[in-house]
Amino acid sequence: MTTADARTPASKQNDGTPDGAIPDDGAGKSIGWHKGYVQGSRPDLRVPVRQVHLTNGKDVTLYDTSGPYTDPAIDTDVRRGLAPLRENWIIARGDTEEYAGRPVRPEDDGVKHTSPRGGLRNLDAVFPGRPRQPRRSRDGRPVTQLAYARRGEITPEMEYVAIRENVEAEVVREEIAAGRAVLPANVNHPEIEPMIIGKRFLVKVNANIGNSAVTSSIEEEVDKMTWATQWGADTVMDLSTGRNIHTTREWVLRNSPVPIGTVPLYQALEKVDGRAEELTWEIYKDTVIEQAEQGVDYMTVHAGVRLPYVPLTARRKTGIVSRGGSIMAAWCLAHHKESFLYEHFEELCEILATYDVTYSLGDGLRPGSIADANDEAQFAELRTLGELNTIAKRFGVQTMIEGPGHVPMHKIKENIDLQQEICEEAPFYTLGPLTTDVAPAYDHITSGIGAAMIAWWGTAMLCYVTPKEHLGLPNRDDVKTGVITYKIAAHAADLAKGHPGAQEWDDALSDARFEFRWEDQFNLALDPDTAREFHDETLPAEPAKTAHFCSMCGPKFCSMKISQDIRRQHGGSQEEIEEGMAEKSKEFAAAGNRVYLPIAD
Amino acid sequence: MTTADARTPASKQNDGTPDGAIPDDGAGKSIGWHKGYVQGSRPDLRVPVRQVHLTNGKDVTLYDTSGPYTDPAIDTDVRRGLAPLRENWIIARGDTEEYAGRPVRPEDDGVKHTSPRGGLRNLDAVFPGRPRQPRRSRDGRPVTQLAYARRGEITPEMEYVAIRENVEAEVVREEIAAGRAVLPANVNHPEIEPMIIGKRFLVKVNANIGNSAVTSSIEEEVDKMTWATQWGADTVMDLSTGRNIHTTREWVLRNSPVPIGTVPLYQALEKVDGRAEELTWEIYKDTVIEQAEQGVDYMTVHAGVRLPYVPLTARRKTGIVSRGGSIMAAWCLAHHKESFLYEHFEELCEILATYDVTYSLGDGLRPGSIADANDEAQFAELRTLGELNTIAKRFGVQTMIEGPGHVPMHKIKENIDLQQEICEEAPFYTLGPLTTDVAPAYDHITSGIGAAMIAWWGTAMLCYVTPKEHLGLPNRDDVKTGVITYKIAAHAADLAKGHPGAQEWDDALSDARFEFRWEDQFNLALDPDTAREFHDETLPAEPAKTAHFCSMCGPKFCSMKISQDIRRQHGGSQEEIEEGMAEKSKEFAAAGNRVYLPIAD
Repeated sequence: MTTADARTPASKQNDGTPDGAIPDDGAGKSIGWHKGYVQGSRPDLRVPVRQVHLTNGKDVTLYDTSGPYTDPAIDTDVRRGLAPLRENWIIARGDTEEYAGRPVRPEDDGVKHTSPRGGLRNLDAVFPGRPRQPRRSRDGRPVTQLAYARRGEITPEMEYVAIRENVEAEVVREEIAAGRAVLPANVNHPEIEPMIIGKRFLVKVNANIGNSAVTSSIEEEVDKMTWATQWGADTVMDLSTGRNIHTTREWVLRNSPVPIGTVPLYQALEKVDGRAEELTWEIYKDTVIEQAEQGVDYMTVHAGVRLPYVPLTARRKTGIVSRGGSIMAAWCLAHHKESFLYEHFEELCEILATYDVTYSLGDGLRPGSIADANDEAQFAELRTLGELNTIAKRFGVQTMIEGPGHVPMHKIKENIDLQQEICEEAPFYTLGPLTTDVAPAYDHITSGIGAAMIAWWGTAMLCYVTPKEHLGLPNRDDVKTGVITYKIAAHAADLAKGHPGAQEWDDALSDARFEFRWEDQFNLALDPDTAREFHDETLPAEPAKTAHFCSMCGPKFCSMKISQDIRRQHGGSQEEIEEGMAEKSKEFAAAGNRVYLPIAD
Repeated sequence: MTTADARTPASKQNDGTPDGAIPDDGAGKSIGWHKGYVQGSRPDLRVPVRQVHLTNGKDVTLYDTSGPYTDPAIDTDVRRGLAPLRENWIIARGDTEEYAGRPVRPEDDGVKHTSPRGGLRNLDAVFPGRPRQPRRSRDGRPVTQLAYARRGEITPEMEYVAIRENVEAEVVREEIAAGRAVLPANVNHPEIEPMIIGKRFLVKVNANIGNSAVTSSIEEEVDKMTWATQWGADTVMDLSTGRNIHTTREWVLRNSPVPIGTVPLYQALEKVDGRAEELTWEIYKDTVIEQAEQGVDYMTVHAGVRLPYVPLTARRKTGIVSRGGSIMAAWCLAHHKESFLYEHFEELCEILATYDVTYSLGDGLRPGSIADANDEAQFAELRTLGELNTIAKRFGVQTMIEGPGHVPMHKIKENIDLQQEICEEAPFYTLGPLTTDVAPAYDHITSGIGAAMIAWWGTAMLCYVTPKEHLGLPNRDDVKTGVITYKIAAHAADLAKGHPGAQEWDDALSDARFEFRWEDQFNLALDPDTAREFHDETLPAEPAKTAHFCSMCGPKFCSMKISQDIRRQHGGSQEEIEEGMAEKSKEFAAAGNRVYLPIAD
């Protein structure tokens, strides 16, 4: 969600992006809200909220993912990066140390030869903001929120999300300790506003960004990230695969108020010029450390794509559709060897534990078509992800499990039920699922349907799908459409799960609708600008904003107006009318529906 | 679905509509299909299909709702209207007669005073096409498809839909006879291509059109109708409430290849200048006959809004949100009387039976917000609709039941289950339902989620919701977006219900996707034009149409390409590879997952 105010800072960063200027949001129109903070137990623990002011004097408080960019009191600058909110919390724990870190090499940005501009560089050259050294566990023991939770510690991060989710901090600690929730927070990403992913909490939404075969500028990716979080993205995955992959990620991380996820395999493949068979554990491990030192909060690891499973995809209609999955399958077959990710998984756990990088165990064999849904290959991999989940927990690494894909509605529930059983209720993180294959250009909708259902049944985070899925690279508008569609799916699921307080938002908007408080409707809407724009298309005049009807039916046909008149025409306050009508309805029922004496007679 | 060819005829009708010219669909690009016909048991029974020609030489046959407009061999002209396809079938039954019919009055078009241009007119003046007299039952006995089905007759209409749905004609007859399906086909609307609405058949989609407080031209409404059917609308409701309401409807009917539904109460209210309390049974009855003579195929009747139920809405968050419902509630309270629709229901049945107008029993007390879902008022009305359904059946009138509305996901199933039980499995026809209130401007999506779910569970037809819901009048683009969204929901439900043949469409598109047959993907897509446009945004060049990758991942990262290479790099035909891989996977399983010998070694 956002407003004119909300997007103004983003426009600072938008200069010269191919997408052009940010759509005019008629500054001054959306003045119906401000950024607020809920004070925690310590001065530096302030949880941001979106305070919507209604014309009836009431306030509605909504979850806010937009970061400091929407706080007019904070002067943000993408070249400086965000303030390291969590730094003192991390230092205070005393279990981490700064160290020189791995030198950044030209290959990290996809530059093969050592040009004058190439050669060794330090992070200052990569990012102009405050100089920083990477941080890691002082003694190799896990510095993860999972480890703290098991020890019974309620970290500031846990208190932060407890306030955000409106639950007891102890509930947060328990869910993390039990592995039913993750709080992705790399010690090298102190800029984030902590959030939690688990079925007992609000359903979260991830937005993917990243440059690709088609080049896009670093500024553009940073802008896409802030744009996505302003519309409600809870995490962002940087799936860049082209040039400047390291530098792009650094800029995104330093400016991101939400956890950042990646797929290290993509960068590793770049380092071997896209020749899957040339991948090695060493190159992959080095890439993971490179990204962990930068501050990546969670990493997709396709360690479940085992050699024996590859043949199971032979009869599939669409084979292997996961990039990571197909790369690992190619490697396995080329070498006739078991996956190096599977074989080195414990070593990988040790690395992730020392930075608190959260696992997102990838579903490399997810179905890419309705025909392939819930097949042997998919569930064989899921069982392996179950094994790996258990191992990761042993090493104190937070873990979530990725899910499909293309799945028809009647096969969706089996996915979440099986995952919850096999993976001991670890958070499920699904892409859609898409409920049909026939609507390219509308896959945000084919998948939004499946996403809402699987989230209702227990999926903790939804990876968005944009209208460009299967066709091309999402632009700014696609990112917005994808995020809004998935916020709808997530909130619909929160309602269906009966999440405490979820319905207050719907109730506030419906009250405004029934009472013709148009400005309040707009300000409470998931997308205030488009709602206002659609209304004004047919009734632009200001008076229409208070009119007791809209252009759909006109005054004569407005059911809500008639409905209100029915109540009013019998005199007295609405409360009295309601009393009276309710009384009458009781009388009527008592009289066995035989006789009815109308109101106010 | 449509293509460039498909829309060309519509553009004829588009001249001078405010929406302006039809978006360029790059004529010649979408040449991958043609209009075909399946020959029935008689020469004049030819069922239209959309034949998609794939580049691999195969053909895919899809359901087609676009009417003669997409047949280049037929020269359509909106001033002449469509050919009366069913006329001979109706005449041949010998149970109907032509008659003078009710004179068309100025008030029918909302013209109060008798101007020179006003006064009595005949249909010729209303519509320039072939002169016609209305038709009705010769002896007052029902001339409905229900009556014929009960008699064991398989009408040409039933054979037509049987071919369309790819089922036995006897199945169609049985479902209609049992009241589990309706075949809306007024004897005065011979132009339609018969279709069926019932849970054992493909899920259908209705699109609403109609001018309103905001004036829109007659041509524009006719164009919206053809536009909607070209994208896949199975029926269209004309909800006009403004001027020229009679004439607009006549033009729509004479040019519509799909059944047309209306809410007669809207026109009746116009005749009393919008003063609900001045409505009378006589005015309403006269309006119903007026519309039945024109050929309206189904009518929404809010006879379930009984006086005693109105107080049940008093404590609601959004009261009564159905226009018809609020009008009847206002009337009931103003007169302190039971609804004249409820009290005259049997007389109304007699009228509808003599034209074969199908009932769509309106849910005037549907919930207008999440808070009001599944409440006492809603279900009290539903029980009354059950009573009325039984009465309608006794009079041989085909009947479907309308459903909500705003309903959170966890309360949706109760709606369809209760309706099926109370209404003896009469077809359920729902608006969405919308699964959250917080996304005005995106209610096609909030409702598309609920629509897909309730259709999976047995709803027979879905009434679309456009992005303008709650905000304004849908324009041409909104109509398209609404129809496409609902075709997605309907098809997703057909898949989940395991409707025979439904998945062939998905399979054909997924095969094309995996084999990089981009043109086939576009031509099989629900919206070929937008799919092609999105693809070309990032890779416009023609070669990209055969490229073994797309702009999303580029050649190095295309999982499908890698997936195919995996199969090929071991030599032999794809079939052989699959054989080999499958063999190995068996061996592997047999070996207890201990050892794995790679393919082709």
